Amino acid sequence: MPLTILVTGGAGYVGSHTTLELLIAGHSVVCVDNLSNAFKDGNAILPEALRRVQNITGQQVIFYPIDLRDSCGLKNIFKKHKIDCVAHFAALKAVGESCRQPLQYYQNNITGTGILLEAMAEAKVFKLVYSSSATVYGEPQFLPITESHPTGNCTSPYGKSKYFVEEILKDLCLSDDRWSVISLRYFNPVGAHSSGSIGEDPNGEPNNLMPYISQVAVGRRKTLNVYGTDYDTKDGTGVRDYIHITDLAEGHVCAIKKLGSADVKGFLTYNLGTGNGYSVLEVVEAFSKASGRKVAYVESPRRPGDIATSYADASLAEAELGWKAKRGLKEMCEDTWKWQRQNPNGFSRSQL
Amino acid sequence: MPLTILVTGGAGYVGSHTTLELLIAGHSVVCVDNLSNAFKDGNAILPEALRRVQNITGQQVIFYPIDLRDSCGLKNIFKKHKIDCVAHFAALKAVGESCRQPLQYYQNNITGTGILLEAMAEAKVFKLVYSSSATVYGEPQFLPITESHPTGNCTSPYGKSKYFVEEILKDLCLSDDRWSVISLRYFNPVGAHSSGSIGEDPNGEPNNLMPYISQVAVGRRKTLNVYGTDYDTKDGTGVRDYIHITDLAEGHVCAIKKLGSADVKGFLTYNLGTGNGYSVLEVVEAFSKASGRKVAYVESPRRPGDIATSYADASLAEAELGWKAKRGLKEMCEDTWKWQRQNPNGFSRSQL
Repeated sequence: MPLTILVTGGAGYVGSHTTLELLIAGHSVVCVDNLSNAFKDGNAILPEALRRVQNITGQQVIFYPIDLRDSCGLKNIFKKHKIDCVAHFAALKAVGESCRQPLQYYQNNITGTGILLEAMAEAKVFKLVYSSSATVYGEPQFLPITESHPTGNCTSPYGKSKYFVEEILKDLCLSDDRWSVISLRYFNPVGAHSSGSIGEDPNGEPNNLMPYISQVAVGRRKTLNVYGTDYDTKDGTGVRDYIHITDLAEGHVCAIKKLGSADVKGFLTYNLGTGNGYSVLEVVEAFSKASGRKVAYVESPRRPGDIATSYADASLAEAELGWKAKRGLKEMCEDTWKWQRQNPNGFSRSQL
Repeated sequence: MPLTILVTGGAGYVGSHTTLELLIAGHSVVCVDNLSNAFKDGNAILPEALRRVQNITGQQVIFYPIDLRDSCGLKNIFKKHKIDCVAHFAALKAVGESCRQPLQYYQNNITGTGILLEAMAEAKVFKLVYSSSATVYGEPQFLPITESHPTGNCTSPYGKSKYFVEEILKDLCLSDDRWSVISLRYFNPVGAHSSGSIGEDPNGEPNNLMPYISQVAVGRRKTLNVYGTDYDTKDGTGVRDYIHITDLAEGHVCAIKKLGSADVKGFLTYNLGTGNGYSVLEVVEAFSKASGRKVAYVESPRRPGDIATSYADASLAEAELGWKAKRGLKEMCEDTWKWQRQNPNGFSRSQL
């Protein structure tokens, strides 16, 4: 059944790819975004990522440039549109920055979510898909990480803000059984839509591996820093569970479908990952192959707070959401490269 | 040196007693309170508790009836007054209610604190005493509880909100070394000022033992429910570390003094307790003796989330703050009874 989904942070990396898949699945999408991490041409109605989503799908996206902490603005959207479900992506997400500006992270990520939840309750919208992260697990106590792995030993304000919001959602569901919330714990989203038309467009120096590699490959940056080459892993570099952004986006479509079934109540969590761990050097090699470019790198010391290995047990999402990642590392690299080559400076054409 | 202290939640139980001790110590006090848990006569300028604090001390209290989430209102106070230090008490505090209304608790306690911290940073006020709680320790893993006991396994949204704010304050101090924050972890504050003129005045049915006992003794309630008589304790009832409210208030005066010394940087935590545990039945007996009234009670099943035994190792506060609780259980009961007898319906004279 076609639904109307409110997507917060819809102009961001995961938000825009999910908006695209929601439209393809036949849903209507209303987006809000404060544009703190998204490019919009001065006179444009839409952020560039959403303009392109419209082009790819031929469907309209309704957009409001508001911050979640604007309670009145948010409540007006719920009055104007009959929202069935909310997919909540809006958040600050840079681990290092969160250590330098913790208050901004907590206020944005926790308070913003609280105001969203209040607006939802007032509008009697009780279905939510929450954008969580494997970072809530902290240092893994066992591998692969299942959803029952303990949470909360997070090393950064970013991670803590994700964990705190999960706890708030859990308590909210316990207090009022009208709520049903699915928290999706992402492992390492990478890649881009297969069209190469939308992708990850970090502000400034990328915090994550794949956009860094691709900016080196395209010549925007000189060398990649490989942080830590003495981990207890196959080649000494950190191992992560990379997941193609389109797989991740499809996971949200499945979660929203799940929320529509009558038997779903309360707070549910699912890992979104492939279950495979790749080392930094494996990703570098796969990217070199996919792009035909050499990716220069230098070995650097470990970063504080980084862990050796993390990968998901993703079987619960398969069993209960009917979702499974379909795209491998090759496709992740190829699609990243397509996006990067077509958009060497990201969405901002003025920087070309 | 006399300072100007901003006291948030200054009309509440701990806030008003601390305001009193700050004035006695020679400081000036500016109070804010949203009056959600405090009585104010319709036309009065001050909440009744603060009016009485003025009467007892002969000193003026400046009062603003605002909520911490009123960012503009708060920032104006920092413009109007040269604040040296903030003592932050404003919070919702009923454990049971927090399970029923988690969102209100998180928004009030976390968001309110975040906005306060933003206003402080803007005004370049970086000294804070935070009203925390032994509930951040969760179920004790060892006794007595020291400050290095793990935190975070909290069983209620109230407890989690206290823990989350401690983490936020810790991260804030790590990010910016201008901050110095002392978090005081209260065990079980009871009693009243020795004048009997101010005391604990819960809205509706008391959540805590001592006000319940005293309302039974004064005839406002019929019987006390003793929740759990089969704990592994001396007499089967729960054991807690009760601390006289005036001792607790004096702890804040010492913490503020400590923040004034140049060597204090970052985030510090101190237990405020006596180090002695008393069972429910011991408190009932001590109260009966102090009041000369029989306190009728019925044995009831355990409440979910309640623990058997909790008491503090309070030696760190003695070593580093020069503070030690001086008042015993007898004085706690006598002063509670004095307050209760003089004010059988609390601050609200209209209910007499």
